[in-house]
Amino acid sequence: MSTKLTSRELAELLEARNFMAIRASLTALTPADSAELIEEFEPAEQAALFRLLPMQLATEFFEYLPVEAQEELIHAMGNEQAAGILDAMSPDDRTALLEELPTAVCARLVESLSPKERAVALRLLDYPENSIGRMMTSEYLTLRDEWNAREVLDHIRSHGRDRETLNVLYVVDALGKLVDEVRIREILLAPLEAKVKDLRNDVLISLTATDDQESAVAAFRKYDRTVLPVVDGHGGLVGIVTVDDILDVVEEEATEDIQKLGGMEQLDEPYMDISLARLVKKRATWLVFLFVGEMLTATAMGHFQDDISKAVILAVFVPLIISSGGNSGSQAATLIIRAMAIGEVGLRDWWKVMRREIFSGLVLGLILAVIGILRIAVWSLFSDAYGPHWLLIAVTVGISLIGVVLWGTLSGSMLPFLLKRLGIDPATSSAPFVATLVDVTGLIIYFAVAGVVLRGTLL
Amino acid sequence: MSTKLTSRELAELLEARNFMAIRASLTALTPADSAELIEEFEPAEQAALFRLLPMQLATEFFEYLPVEAQEELIHAMGNEQAAGILDAMSPDDRTALLEELPTAVCARLVESLSPKERAVALRLLDYPENSIGRMMTSEYLTLRDEWNAREVLDHIRSHGRDRETLNVLYVVDALGKLVDEVRIREILLAPLEAKVKDLRNDVLISLTATDDQESAVAAFRKYDRTVLPVVDGHGGLVGIVTVDDILDVVEEEATEDIQKLGGMEQLDEPYMDISLARLVKKRATWLVFLFVGEMLTATAMGHFQDDISKAVILAVFVPLIISSGGNSGSQAATLIIRAMAIGEVGLRDWWKVMRREIFSGLVLGLILAVIGILRIAVWSLFSDAYGPHWLLIAVTVGISLIGVVLWGTLSGSMLPFLLKRLGIDPATSSAPFVATLVDVTGLIIYFAVAGVVLRGTLL
Repeated sequence: MSTKLTSRELAELLEARNFMAIRASLTALTPADSAELIEEFEPAEQAALFRLLPMQLATEFFEYLPVEAQEELIHAMGNEQAAGILDAMSPDDRTALLEELPTAVCARLVESLSPKERAVALRLLDYPENSIGRMMTSEYLTLRDEWNAREVLDHIRSHGRDRETLNVLYVVDALGKLVDEVRIREILLAPLEAKVKDLRNDVLISLTATDDQESAVAAFRKYDRTVLPVVDGHGGLVGIVTVDDILDVVEEEATEDIQKLGGMEQLDEPYMDISLARLVKKRATWLVFLFVGEMLTATAMGHFQDDISKAVILAVFVPLIISSGGNSGSQAATLIIRAMAIGEVGLRDWWKVMRREIFSGLVLGLILAVIGILRIAVWSLFSDAYGPHWLLIAVTVGISLIGVVLWGTLSGSMLPFLLKRLGIDPATSSAPFVATLVDVTGLIIYFAVAGVVLRGTLL
Repeated sequence: MSTKLTSRELAELLEARNFMAIRASLTALTPADSAELIEEFEPAEQAALFRLLPMQLATEFFEYLPVEAQEELIHAMGNEQAAGILDAMSPDDRTALLEELPTAVCARLVESLSPKERAVALRLLDYPENSIGRMMTSEYLTLRDEWNAREVLDHIRSHGRDRETLNVLYVVDALGKLVDEVRIREILLAPLEAKVKDLRNDVLISLTATDDQESAVAAFRKYDRTVLPVVDGHGGLVGIVTVDDILDVVEEEATEDIQKLGGMEQLDEPYMDISLARLVKKRATWLVFLFVGEMLTATAMGHFQDDISKAVILAVFVPLIISSGGNSGSQAATLIIRAMAIGEVGLRDWWKVMRREIFSGLVLGLILAVIGILRIAVWSLFSDAYGPHWLLIAVTVGISLIGVVLWGTLSGSMLPFLLKRLGIDPATSSAPFVATLVDVTGLIIYFAVAGVVLRGTLL
């Protein structure tokens, strides 16, 4: 890496209007580092910086900015500057930006593109959101079966300049139907007279443009490729998807799942960028829903008020009992949801999972029960905290813990299956959701056990 | 994709010892699909299937099996067969397998490799676990500055056969020091007489072999590359890392974080494959830790036993109050931990985050307080559930909710910063961990508020 330019130095150069130096120093950085540096400036200053750069370089830098920053910058640029950059952007990055813009701005910008790029942009925007079509690029090279290696190399030399990848070339027939792919390595290693049809590998993997992006992730994960072709319903080659975009999808999906697991709506924007109002809204919805659900605990507790007034000591263990159910449920739900997300567990595995979780729940419940009983016993040796019937109380707590932990583990592991079966994202059964569900039943289990064990003594 | 062979058909072919047909039908599938099919068989049958295939193809299939399946299969194979496959594997996949094997098995297998591959394997295993060195491959091509495009193409034709990628070639000096990289596209597009030194891009990004794999992920995310070179402490080129391995690391890291967030140790193996004993152990540790922490709630409740016996109605709202704190804490912790993991939030942002969370906590607490007060008021209109002092109870619950939610939000968001500052993985401050922490303080807040508001009436 070359000597690093700081944002302070860049600001000074900008103030001194030393455009030559700015251009020289930005050019010496990688596009990613330049973008990082430029991002620290205000949109208006950014627009000024971009005007100093040759269009090709400006576009490269622009593509490395996060979509939110691109959006602000597009607003700060004149229409002509914006159109110039959009025209030169690679189609997949452009689609990612356009779909974030307000419809009117998007339409105006698409209108200002060159006719060729406008057609490409409109075609990609025509695919549904989160479909593979939206992440495609049209920058690939096609070959014909009857060409030889020399003709391919000549074709690359004359048409390869703007293509996103030359690592894999696509063989199509006269109607544009995808026939196979050829890796550039095969062309390079082959004698110059070898025919394309003898170099292709005959095992073609392709994606379908209207499919969900998750299926693209699954295909890249399974086949370890860096690029895959995309076809339409008739097998016609319509674009390619590259693995760097897949990396982004994987991270986004993990973020969505994690946020849902934390008991809120997915943010869809970076934490530091989202407005406070939206941040609160995304959290309030679930928090209120959980609160209303949790109100059932007050109703349940209300029913047991008589028991509590007879044996106040029962109330003392309520938080301990219900939180143990919540924690074990949260563990089970998290495990299953993640295993589903990465394809380790499918709907048909529910029975296998249930057996595992019944065993786990029983063992975990037993462990906690033993600790809980020991705690009460030891305390009772040295104090009078739990009264003369401490042993019965210990038994009540122990049995309840086994029941509650088993129930938590079972609900936590089965709820994701139920949701998935109903067509709802399993990640919705978040740790807090399961905990709330288990809290109410946990109380009922606890007071039911107490009713049996303590009948005639404390109750 | 060709006509799909089912595992049943393959089993029949195997039983009929129709080796020609087996070989023909497996060859027609992609390696990933073949591996998926073969995975359904017992290790001994798998070993038999692999013996039928030419070594090159067997190795390709083998590389697509999950590491756990590879491990079982290696045990089922004879030493010679195993050595043959390991010898032909790409070095990065081989390291991933070897590091999973028991030390003795690993040593025996390394010993049986060809001298050349043994040296490579030992060199890679010498890097620390989770370091970039462990995910490197040595299958790259190097160039010299003074070569021209024609010489490069000749070099590729004679040495490129076994290289994992030909998309990027690396320019080294006479001492093996990495000078720059050249994309194959530049070579292909250039006139045949153009010199390498005029084709290289002069902005070199490289990884360091001893660095953590997370830094490789960060570099791939930032620079959108498909392959990056790795250097040692002296700048010497020692290997390359390809993006398909990065995809795996990203998924593994997300899985680890999600499991930690669910309140357990990371499993490190697929849910369906892990033994029940290990599964329970990974969960029991945290569950016991949380249980012991939660015992403080029993201690706290013990202190307020007198209050509860005077006003049993107080006990009724305990689960509602503490779970609201837990839920808001879980939201905040999840948000911050994920934002830290993907680099959106760093240690220095703590104050900015704190301001946002104080505001969010207050608003969220207010919303819940209003709902809680309304609930108590409405119930009191139609029943006598909360007695004559229902308004005071409503006020107690409302104020407590604001306090508890604010406190949950603050602890949930600040704990990850504290842990990170102490060098502990922030994901350790899981939803259940934060909930446990907030439960105890939530009780204290609630009874303290009750002590003030209800003094002279109920207490």
